[in-house]
Amino acid sequence: MTYCVGIKLEAGLVFLSDSRTNAGIDQISTFRKMMIYEVPGERFMVLLSAGNLSISQSVREILQVEKVDRGPHEEPLTIWNAPSMFDATRVLGSAIRRVYEQDGPSLKAAGVDFNMSAIFGGQVKGEAMRLFQVYSAGNFIEATQETCYFQVGESKYGKPVLDRMITPKSRLNTAAKCALVSMDSTLKSNLSVGLPLDLLVYREGSFASQEHVCIDEHNPYYQMIHSTWGQRLREVFLSIDDPLGDTEPTHPLLVDSERYAPLRKITNASEKVV
Amino acid sequence: MTYCVGIKLEAGLVFLSDSRTNAGIDQISTFRKMMIYEVPGERFMVLLSAGNLSISQSVREILQVEKVDRGPHEEPLTIWNAPSMFDATRVLGSAIRRVYEQDGPSLKAAGVDFNMSAIFGGQVKGEAMRLFQVYSAGNFIEATQETCYFQVGESKYGKPVLDRMITPKSRLNTAAKCALVSMDSTLKSNLSVGLPLDLLVYREGSFASQEHVCIDEHNPYYQMIHSTWGQRLREVFLSIDDPLGDTEPTHPLLVDSERYAPLRKITNASEKVV
Repeated sequence: MTYCVGIKLEAGLVFLSDSRTNAGIDQISTFRKMMIYEVPGERFMVLLSAGNLSISQSVREILQVEKVDRGPHEEPLTIWNAPSMFDATRVLGSAIRRVYEQDGPSLKAAGVDFNMSAIFGGQVKGEAMRLFQVYSAGNFIEATQETCYFQVGESKYGKPVLDRMITPKSRLNTAAKCALVSMDSTLKSNLSVGLPLDLLVYREGSFASQEHVCIDEHNPYYQMIHSTWGQRLREVFLSIDDPLGDTEPTHPLLVDSERYAPLRKITNASEKVV
Repeated sequence: MTYCVGIKLEAGLVFLSDSRTNAGIDQISTFRKMMIYEVPGERFMVLLSAGNLSISQSVREILQVEKVDRGPHEEPLTIWNAPSMFDATRVLGSAIRRVYEQDGPSLKAAGVDFNMSAIFGGQVKGEAMRLFQVYSAGNFIEATQETCYFQVGESKYGKPVLDRMITPKSRLNTAAKCALVSMDSTLKSNLSVGLPLDLLVYREGSFASQEHVCIDEHNPYYQMIHSTWGQRLREVFLSIDDPLGDTEPTHPLLVDSERYAPLRKITNASEKVV
């Protein structure tokens, strides 16, 4: 599977992707899922992709040259001339639809879903940074103040920590750390997500990525997160009061609901359940 | 949806279930998912169920009276005379198969999956406590030293904390607290899981449940978990070193992989991707 997360903050964008791909449980390989498109000083875009690898690789290949017709009086739209991230994302949607036209019918005949999703974000000179989640039909949604991050792939294990920590006002450092903690929880619970990771931090208005790092098992920061987070989580957990009396069957802290009745115990075959 | 967890420790068993049921997103009701079967001093069993409510309610109704034939010389097997939890779980499997015979074809015709899963655990006098996860085909697996808990329903959000905290040697108090934290993470991330909760703690060899509590939004312990866990998690998170330099585009702690190449940046339409 895959786990990718993209976060949009006021200060910039944070992208993190794993690199595990599996066809079944016994065919596991390493494919990196982050692509960077950059015209320094003018436009900067990052694509994270999840789903069927043959589809997402084709989409990546096509995206670079995809053209969306804008009528006879205008140059076709590409990611290289798109005046906004919205338009660039339309080009990505078009690239996905092109792959669907090429491969969709054969995949369907083979019983394989046309399964691809992507996070696409960045900045084009003249507008603010934007972040999109793109679906396999080529349609897409945009991150907002209220929902400032997107995940694709195995998203659930790593969601609680993002929900608790990230707001648009978070620092880039906080978001990068949070994405790594979120990834660490996912790696711990799902074998189909794996190292190395690609982490990219984009600072608002820079139109270039100075900060990209590929994190493997030797990375000291990731090792620290991996051991420290688990250890401190344990300490916090143990520091919270226990719910039950130690040996006595009492509930010093748990109080039965006044609204809901205690559960009946069924003690024989003829007792009524309700 | 649903979230239920059952944990088997050396000291006893812990069961926790939510009570939200939804048919689509706009039809949400409260149905409790825990059943207690108890013959004081002789047998004690708890059933937690997830999946289609019409199926799981039918299974619960039938389980109480379900009989599995044991040939002409023996009484049929029931949950009331089963000599072991394994045999009692066979009776549960049989009850599920009976509902499948009754409702399966019509559900299939209506395009509805026969979807039900359960956690079933307890103790029958003469053997140790046992804990099972039961599938919709009536087959089941048993918890072991290595995997001492089961989840059904929306299990992913709440799994990391269980994986980090619980071993068979954990105290009942620790497991009850952990189950509540796991539930809290799930409630935070998935609207289809909701209060009230049923928490039951069974002490090894007691053959009775002294400790059951129904937890609603007024429960002071659950309120404390809800606010404290989030708050302390935040403190721990913030206490961990940042990965990036504060303003400089440097990586004081993140070190690029030696094994994997840096990602190429694509800067124009004709650049080669690989």
